[in-house]
Amino acid sequence: MAPYKIRFLPDGQTVEVEGGSTVTEAAQKADVHINNLCGGKGVCGRCRVQVNNGKVRADKHSISLLSKEEILEGYVLACQTKVDSDMEIMIPAESILEEGQILMDCSVEYSTPEKINLHRVPADPMCLYEPLTQKVFLEMKEPSPEDNVSDMDRIIRELRKKTPYRDFEISLLCLQGLAMKLRTNAWKATATLAKHGDIGSILQIEAGDTAERNYGLAVDVGTTTVVAQLVHLKSGNVLGVAGSHNPQAHFGEDVISRMIFACGREEGLHPLHQAVIKNINQLIKSLTEEKGVDPREITALVAAGNTTMSHLLLSLIPCSIRVDPYVPTANVYPQIRAKELGIDIHPGGIVEVIPGVASYVGGDIVAGIIACGMADRPETRVLIDVGTNGEIAIGNNEWMVCCSASAGPAFEGGGIKHGMRATRGAIEKVVVSNGRVEYKSIGKGKLKGICGSGLIDSLYELARNHIIDGEGKFHRSSHDGRVVERDGELQFVLAPAGETEIGREIVITQSDISHLIRSKGAVFAAIKSLMDYVGLNFNAIDTFFVAGGFGSYLDIPKAIKIGLLPDIDPSRIRFVGNSSLMGARMCLLSAHTMERAAQIARNTTNIELSNYHPFMDEYVAAMFLPHTDRKLFPSVDY
Amino acid sequence: MAPYKIRFLPDGQTVEVEGGSTVTEAAQKADVHINNLCGGKGVCGRCRVQVNNGKVRADKHSISLLSKEEILEGYVLACQTKVDSDMEIMIPAESILEEGQILMDCSVEYSTPEKINLHRVPADPMCLYEPLTQKVFLEMKEPSPEDNVSDMDRIIRELRKKTPYRDFEISLLCLQGLAMKLRTNAWKATATLAKHGDIGSILQIEAGDTAERNYGLAVDVGTTTVVAQLVHLKSGNVLGVAGSHNPQAHFGEDVISRMIFACGREEGLHPLHQAVIKNINQLIKSLTEEKGVDPREITALVAAGNTTMSHLLLSLIPCSIRVDPYVPTANVYPQIRAKELGIDIHPGGIVEVIPGVASYVGGDIVAGIIACGMADRPETRVLIDVGTNGEIAIGNNEWMVCCSASAGPAFEGGGIKHGMRATRGAIEKVVVSNGRVEYKSIGKGKLKGICGSGLIDSLYELARNHIIDGEGKFHRSSHDGRVVERDGELQFVLAPAGETEIGREIVITQSDISHLIRSKGAVFAAIKSLMDYVGLNFNAIDTFFVAGGFGSYLDIPKAIKIGLLPDIDPSRIRFVGNSSLMGARMCLLSAHTMERAAQIARNTTNIELSNYHPFMDEYVAAMFLPHTDRKLFPSVDY
Repeated sequence: MAPYKIRFLPDGQTVEVEGGSTVTEAAQKADVHINNLCGGKGVCGRCRVQVNNGKVRADKHSISLLSKEEILEGYVLACQTKVDSDMEIMIPAESILEEGQILMDCSVEYSTPEKINLHRVPADPMCLYEPLTQKVFLEMKEPSPEDNVSDMDRIIRELRKKTPYRDFEISLLCLQGLAMKLRTNAWKATATLAKHGDIGSILQIEAGDTAERNYGLAVDVGTTTVVAQLVHLKSGNVLGVAGSHNPQAHFGEDVISRMIFACGREEGLHPLHQAVIKNINQLIKSLTEEKGVDPREITALVAAGNTTMSHLLLSLIPCSIRVDPYVPTANVYPQIRAKELGIDIHPGGIVEVIPGVASYVGGDIVAGIIACGMADRPETRVLIDVGTNGEIAIGNNEWMVCCSASAGPAFEGGGIKHGMRATRGAIEKVVVSNGRVEYKSIGKGKLKGICGSGLIDSLYELARNHIIDGEGKFHRSSHDGRVVERDGELQFVLAPAGETEIGREIVITQSDISHLIRSKGAVFAAIKSLMDYVGLNFNAIDTFFVAGGFGSYLDIPKAIKIGLLPDIDPSRIRFVGNSSLMGARMCLLSAHTMERAAQIARNTTNIELSNYHPFMDEYVAAMFLPHTDRKLFPSVDY
Repeated sequence: MAPYKIRFLPDGQTVEVEGGSTVTEAAQKADVHINNLCGGKGVCGRCRVQVNNGKVRADKHSISLLSKEEILEGYVLACQTKVDSDMEIMIPAESILEEGQILMDCSVEYSTPEKINLHRVPADPMCLYEPLTQKVFLEMKEPSPEDNVSDMDRIIRELRKKTPYRDFEISLLCLQGLAMKLRTNAWKATATLAKHGDIGSILQIEAGDTAERNYGLAVDVGTTTVVAQLVHLKSGNVLGVAGSHNPQAHFGEDVISRMIFACGREEGLHPLHQAVIKNINQLIKSLTEEKGVDPREITALVAAGNTTMSHLLLSLIPCSIRVDPYVPTANVYPQIRAKELGIDIHPGGIVEVIPGVASYVGGDIVAGIIACGMADRPETRVLIDVGTNGEIAIGNNEWMVCCSASAGPAFEGGGIKHGMRATRGAIEKVVVSNGRVEYKSIGKGKLKGICGSGLIDSLYELARNHIIDGEGKFHRSSHDGRVVERDGELQFVLAPAGETEIGREIVITQSDISHLIRSKGAVFAAIKSLMDYVGLNFNAIDTFFVAGGFGSYLDIPKAIKIGLLPDIDPSRIRFVGNSSLMGARMCLLSAHTMERAAQIARNTTNIELSNYHPFMDEYVAAMFLPHTDRKLFPSVDY
């Protein structure tokens, strides 16, 4: 099969592929980022592209999720369509994963260092400031016949004076070249130390005084995005933040599709592992270039991710995570050196991955527990992480219980006709009153879709205006012109075609609403089940922390009123954004906190909701707006 | 400069080199082993070769150490002679380093495993049998919903039942691939553990039961020879031994010339480091092939060597060892992994290098102290290692003091006209009576020279027969025909030309005798100084252990009578051969002993004899046969 030339518009990237390759594969080769929510199974419909020129091998799978109008315009699903000639393909705005926008988006949360400190959310009061690595400047006396201990002993003697450690270990790499380094630099050197139990582990010895130049990296390895903060370890200051889509999305958008990719073929794990390592290295490159830091001056990295992400990061086989009885290779990970993973910081730099509790309650949640100070205070607190997998943790300094529930990707825009992540062009706020719709979108420019917070608002506004009923069904007759029928399904028109970049109306369909109700129901049922399991009611909780990929904005009262969050005083519910990243940074800045993370992971009880019968009843009861048991939501005004 | 063809006889190896290369460099390239005692400085005269055909660029350095007769026969010094045409070069027997003979030679000591056990010399009574690595077979229960701990936790749970460890650490490499390994092998696996403080360090997890197949390697990295023993770690049995010349000899025969090579040029350290690593890998290959062991089944290696050899092994800069105040990079070395050094055993296998006391009292001596059980018994014992550098240790379970003295290479054959190592063709025993000389040589075939034990015997026999006086001077008139004058120097003819392979008489010259007296004087003076330093006389010593490269034989009474060893009951003096190798094996078989080695190294006091004034007086007094103070040698019969 001869190679064909494929040109992707609007940016014009060109690539050659063999006939029979899918358009998605061609795009991957061209480094063009097409949405791939379902991992190429042809069921999400998020990879629609328009064939301008060229022949494709299309079949019913290529067009099954498209409207007749789209089919006539030459749209196909990229993942189901095979190349059969030279082609020119237009990728519509809503099908592009725009790399550039993520960082801006994260910037809302993280770009202003002075706003970010350990006290942004109640910090761990036990958090001793003791970065994972520290640099100690040493001025030594030159050897003499009366004092001719070895170079290593001379260094250790100085370190004993300047650090609390009594015993030290040293890597071979540090000793190699040491004799010259000390003798050509007047016996002035800087040692980089890490805590290893009670032992000071010497990672590096540099000539002269470099004590100021010691950096760390906190990384949140999310399923969707990877965000890294560059931290000056001596001061704790965040120097910069960079983020990107997780490029593993090429292989499947959610953890399940990635596990299927990793486990369904020979060497399936390798490309997923490589993708995230390469991604982290790109973030390191961009951060260090911007801030004038040599990547080798980064001597510690802490990563937090869910159990699957942590496994892929470490190249651990994730396959048994997916199948009953859901057993990961490990929940607590060894401390490793950067060179073992090929991470481009100091090769002997330490890499810690925050430990998790179980297959579906990972290190991101433990990091969140740390960030929210939950495990070191007597008050009982709850952390709710809303994502495709919703995780809930509840506890205090004496006990901690957690669970997870498959909520579906609706609040991240997945499975929703015009759903999208909280990036530029996403509708993030919606108000409907007297038949008029007002919305606010992220950034300037035309609309592309609706993100999680916009979907929550929409659901509430539709219910409050009685456009949908308690089961989420449209009242066909109401609000003429806004509720329309297309392709046999009722939909609410949020924005007319003229206001959108995609050239079509942005709508919320009946099945979108069903998805949203299922998602919010699963999350609430998980919260409720866990509260019941520990025998507490909502009033016993000091604070509810909500994390998740909503972007910078979440209207908590509306989230309560659709029945996603419990109906308590909204001031007791706090949206904490990326608590996983913050927990990673707290571990980076405190070896003690990193040790606590392992204790928290080990001492947290995980409830498998699939084996916990009351959960199913709670789930069914929560599949209503706001809830079948309206007494649980006294404040609801519709 | 065109490349020239150089052919080496007698074996016919051919190599091409550029004009201007030295003959020594050509020989190295051809893998022909020419003696190179002084490291190519043209001062030892041990690399004489005969040019059969071809032009050389010779100058006075090429021939300065040769007799007129030799010059006429076309002899030159290989290290000082540059190639200037195609050549044919004959390497005389005495200039060849014969690889093949070392093993045979070592075999005398080590080839019979059943003779070798920890009790061959008084073993360390504290030596707990606890090999550095152990394999533990685990049969685990398959995970179930009621028991879904991670794979790693499942393994650790089993290990807690089967080992005394409470806490474990695991390498990333062990976790990678683990999920599959357990699930395709019915949850049967074997873990390889090393002791890391109080923690069990998991190096490897293999499928199935491999607990029997765990091997270790004890290596004596000597300046002259490298000897390795393959040990079955579960039983402690020595399966085989292999040895070779240390190929670093290409760069200089003794530690000083090697340091000069390493420090005198850019990248000088690298070839020395690579040479010994390659050498160890060759020994591993030969041992494992012979014994049907996969090199990856070797999971631990313990090496012992002097401080310079240890530095070169670990690629540490040795340069400051050589200059006052004699400071090494380290005396205690980190535990490393085989892959860090490129040693071809299990890449995660642990490599320990036995710690030393100071620049000139290295891990070989600490290994000897261990092998001789010196540091764990109340009796005070002495270890004397006779080599180019003579090291002495004295002590018991409460204290240990050591020193070293530059004895010169005489007892290893260096600087002696017909001196050689204890390999085939070496005269190792000599008796002179009534003008007749009887000798015994190693192996069959013609004579090549005299080794250390032969030199000790000769010195004694010459003194006893009054052929030399107390200062070692020949009585010109005595024993006509045996004492002759050649090249202006008196010499004693030990073997006539007809009995030798080299076609010339084997003689002991006046300057040979001076060298031998200086060497024995330095060793005895060091012993005596150390005894005086600690305030003990020879009778207070339980046992004197003598180690050194004498081969398998040392006539202790004769060594006493020349004044090398103290004049006590010879039954209290034991020749222990390669105590360094034995100490290394004891450490391999006992993590406790390995830890003891570091304690011994730290707690041993080193006396720098160069700063210790009484030593010089002792040295001068000992430069006499047997000694200036004859009362110290009451048993001497001449």
